Amino acid sequence: MDHGMTEQLNVQQMAEKLLAADNVLILCHKNPDGDTIGCGSALYYALSALDKTAAVLCSDTIPGRYAFTNPRLYKGEFEPEIVVAVDVASVQLFGENNGMPQFSRHVDLCIDHHAGNSGYAEYTLLDGHAAAAAELLYDVICAMGVDLTAHMANCLYTGLSTDTGCFKFSSTTARTHIIAAKLMEAGARVEELNTLLFDTKPRERMEAERIARNHLEYHLDGRCALIYLTRDEIEQSKVDPADLEELTGLPISIEGVKVGLTLRQQPGGSYRISVRTAKGVDACEIAKRLGGGGHTRAAGCELLGNLDNTKSAILAEVEAVLDAPQEGA
Amino acid sequence: MDHGMTEQLNVQQMAEKLLAADNVLILCHKNPDGDTIGCGSALYYALSALDKTAAVLCSDTIPGRYAFTNPRLYKGEFEPEIVVAVDVASVQLFGENNGMPQFSRHVDLCIDHHAGNSGYAEYTLLDGHAAAAAELLYDVICAMGVDLTAHMANCLYTGLSTDTGCFKFSSTTARTHIIAAKLMEAGARVEELNTLLFDTKPRERMEAERIARNHLEYHLDGRCALIYLTRDEIEQSKVDPADLEELTGLPISIEGVKVGLTLRQQPGGSYRISVRTAKGVDACEIAKRLGGGGHTRAAGCELLGNLDNTKSAILAEVEAVLDAPQEGA
Ligand SMILES: [Mn+2]
Ligand SMILES: [Mn+2]
Repeated sequence: MDHGMTEQLNVQQMAEKLLAADNVLILCHKNPDGDTIGCGSALYYALSALDKTAAVLCSDTIPGRYAFTNPRLYKGEFEPEIVVAVDVASVQLFGENNGMPQFSRHVDLCIDHHAGNSGYAEYTLLDGHAAAAAELLYDVICAMGVDLTAHMANCLYTGLSTDTGCFKFSSTTARTHIIAAKLMEAGARVEELNTLLFDTKPRERMEAERIARNHLEYHLDGRCALIYLTRDEIEQSKVDPADLEELTGLPISIEGVKVGLTLRQQPGGSYRISVRTAKGVDACEIAKRLGGGGHTRAAGCELLGNLDNTKSAILAEVEAVLDAPQEGA
Repeated sequence: MDHGMTEQLNVQQMAEKLLAADNVLILCHKNPDGDTIGCGSALYYALSALDKTAAVLCSDTIPGRYAFTNPRLYKGEFEPEIVVAVDVASVQLFGENNGMPQFSRHVDLCIDHHAGNSGYAEYTLLDGHAAAAAELLYDVICAMGVDLTAHMANCLYTGLSTDTGCFKFSSTTARTHIIAAKLMEAGARVEELNTLLFDTKPRERMEAERIARNHLEYHLDGRCALIYLTRDEIEQSKVDPADLEELTGLPISIEGVKVGLTLRQQPGGSYRISVRTAKGVDACEIAKRLGGGGHTRAAGCELLGNLDNTKSAILAEVEAVLDAPQEGA
């Protein structure tokens, strides 16, 4: 993996760089998730506890469910000595709004857990095995000698739990659980957070899911399940398209299904296809055959054409991959 | 809390009682869940590792998703010196099948985490703050000096994760996470287990959920959401009624909803109503007004009458409780 010209730091060295500055600007990634916001906020409060001036900058608005993290947002009121990015894998992910380009051009420090981090910062603390950047922020904040408050713990728990689907995803490690335990001991209110983060869905999301479930189809002797949403359906439900991401896990969660497909019609009319597979079936291989890509268990592609053509095209590739002789079999 | 005539033991004492016996019969509760099966299986393998004769007895068949735990099932092939119950709160929960009554009449040891345990056993290890009996079994197995195998860790992780909704329920503590970390270090294959336990739903369950979601209604200015399934719908979907339990969390998961209601028509025609509430609304108070009961956030009652009458009756009580002046307000 090429990590650019960055110099890798360990936790202690990163803590020292932060301790050396009086004015710190913290950058989050665009379309902010619980990890980047949780880390940015926790670091903001940790630096404030050390009587430093700090603020958070993000190209997009912080979603309502993360509003409780409540960091000071940067409005240009100080000249940062140090710019630090949290949970941002590459420069493209900073976005272009809120004056971000002025700062994302030169980033001093980066704390991240994406194995493919491009090494855009001058100094980087990178751990590709961490389930969330929040694991690293926990270490850095402790190394700075800050007493973790309940609010910092809430912020870091938000990063940890959202990036792991509440400790369900394969990225979860023993260390993830150990840090969760430390955050609970520091006063994280996990019952309220879990309700907020995992069990509070907008009505519009419920309506879109209802329609998608009514469209559930089984193909290839039940080895493939498919749901879809047309543009009209998405628009009529008034769902935030970001809230549809979660639906991609639905078809693959059905017993006996090896390939789960979710088709979402895009504003231009094409269908975006999300491919999820059971262990032993390569989602990326399926997506690649139609010009897409991704990971072994989660991949995607986009096809022009009407719903029937799109279904036929993807199902043909699913069948080809499912019926291909297994390697080593 | 009355815990009968039982003598309370600590972890070390419980381990010693088990170490003292050569032939051990392990009892699980009826309608077995991941905790009772996971604990029973882990204990079976731990005792076997000590060259003891052991077996598990359960009044009901072990559900397919827990089959991997694969304990030796008791067929009367040895005379137990000691009978130990795991995750069983009272004698009624043993059930009547598979020759259970012969052994449930006199239980020597009980390891449990239900605060209301009736104290039916001669000696009890009880921790009402444990999120799962698996937390206690972890301690007991370690105290017996057994090296935790990956399979024992898988069994205990099954108990831990199923009883906590994968670390989401309010019963989850820092200690739950610490034990999860230990189980992962011992080789628990949590990715496969989480897929099996949380992301594998029968087609029939999907069909029943589809119907229920089509019946979603909002009442009382969106403060109450309601879903229902008639007997015909339940039967036509061919769903295992046990698989419908999870649906009771659906209406309360909608933004702005304070009371979520799930109505399931029973074989006799009456409606079983599950009441789930947001923080600050007493589910038990609502259920009690109609002759039911339960906990603060989850309660239930059963009403005779057709669907419309049932809805009117429960909605009237929901409204009365929601509109009652708040204590201390
Ligand atoms: Mn992240
Ligand atoms: Mn239990």
